[in-house]
Amino acid sequence: MTTDLPSGWVVDDTSAEEVARERAVYEPFTERLRRLVDLCIRSEVDLDAVLEAQAHVDAAIELLGRDTIEGSYGVRIGDGFGRNWGNAIMGLRNAIAPPLHIETDGVSRSWVDFELGAAYEGPPTFVHGGVLSLVLDHVFGAAAGADHTPHMTGTLTLVYKRATRLGVPLRAEAWVDRTEGRKSFVVGFVADEQGRTVEAEGIFVQPREWGQ
Amino acid sequence: MTTDLPSGWVVDDTSAEEVARERAVYEPFTERLRRLVDLCIRSEVDLDAVLEAQAHVDAAIELLGRDTIEGSYGVRIGDGFGRNWGNAIMGLRNAIAPPLHIETDGVSRSWVDFELGAAYEGPPTFVHGGVLSLVLDHVFGAAAGADHTPHMTGTLTLVYKRATRLGVPLRAEAWVDRTEGRKSFVVGFVADEQGRTVEAEGIFVQPREWGQ
Repeated sequence: MTTDLPSGWVVDDTSAEEVARERAVYEPFTERLRRLVDLCIRSEVDLDAVLEAQAHVDAAIELLGRDTIEGSYGVRIGDGFGRNWGNAIMGLRNAIAPPLHIETDGVSRSWVDFELGAAYEGPPTFVHGGVLSLVLDHVFGAAAGADHTPHMTGTLTLVYKRATRLGVPLRAEAWVDRTEGRKSFVVGFVADEQGRTVEAEGIFVQPREWGQ
Repeated sequence: MTTDLPSGWVVDDTSAEEVARERAVYEPFTERLRRLVDLCIRSEVDLDAVLEAQAHVDAAIELLGRDTIEGSYGVRIGDGFGRNWGNAIMGLRNAIAPPLHIETDGVSRSWVDFELGAAYEGPPTFVHGGVLSLVLDHVFGAAAGADHTPHMTGTLTLVYKRATRLGVPLRAEAWVDRTEGRKSFVVGFVADEQGRTVEAEGIFVQPREWGQ
């Protein structure tokens, strides 16, 4: 364990038990918040009920706002394990994240099964194309980093074959096609049950400070 | 006004006054929800306070969940104006959306000034690269559609010059470089005050049913 970690990486003294307790509270809380985000879009109740709901949201804001960190969550390393709970697409404590539960083969391949609801809409009834690029960016990074070497996106090219429906089972996959020094050339796709909807390729780069 | 609109486009009978009333309630409500999403990530209060906040979130869910639409928000056209209030990056009623307030020249150019907080984190302290692709996808679509012809993303290529910080003023710009039939070739970038952080180019396609 080193003390000259990049900005935002924090080694804290949280024990495994404390992490488990925090997870047990924040995982369902964030899930409820995702449900509320969804209902804010899809609700048809009269506006007085929305104002009543707002009083509750204000009360929750008052409670959570009593003590906060500055900036963002970063990655907190306690008990030997990094927690990126604020991450925009994976974060356990981020209601914007679906969240994705990405799997890898530990070498050079990653995949995830997911479904996107009303909050991820672009063209009516379809997933926002940019949300699929966000998913692919992260899944590609997970393939490049499947062997536990962090990578940043260098380039990413997306080809949209057809629109992707909201509310249906989707799968994203990525694998490293080849590597050159610190660069991994990654390819992959998003598919629904009828086949691929987006194909992509990208170059993911291991930051110099992490390299050998 | 035609009745054979694509799926998800709804002509409703909402008057301009009703739209204004709905906006006056939902705009601040959604803004509060964005604040709560942010605090869910950055709060350091004890877990009992989180459980107390959850009771309020549950009460808000109960209120908004009493009457909902099926599926997603789509685009609702009342009083001659389309409302895409569920959109993942623009939506007035979508707490996932920053939201972006994109401007255009009415011809072939679009731009937006924005700032992204803790909920958009990728690498610690930096904006998720995929969130920037989501922003660019939408801003590019707005440039291709600046003359009011809807476009879908065909291809998008992103080149990440360097990491983009959270919590600083950002600007995205896009413009149509040239067109070929239903295809618009768009280029653009995201920049912070020190210069460009992401450059991109893409092909945006006018769907056949909207073409001449």
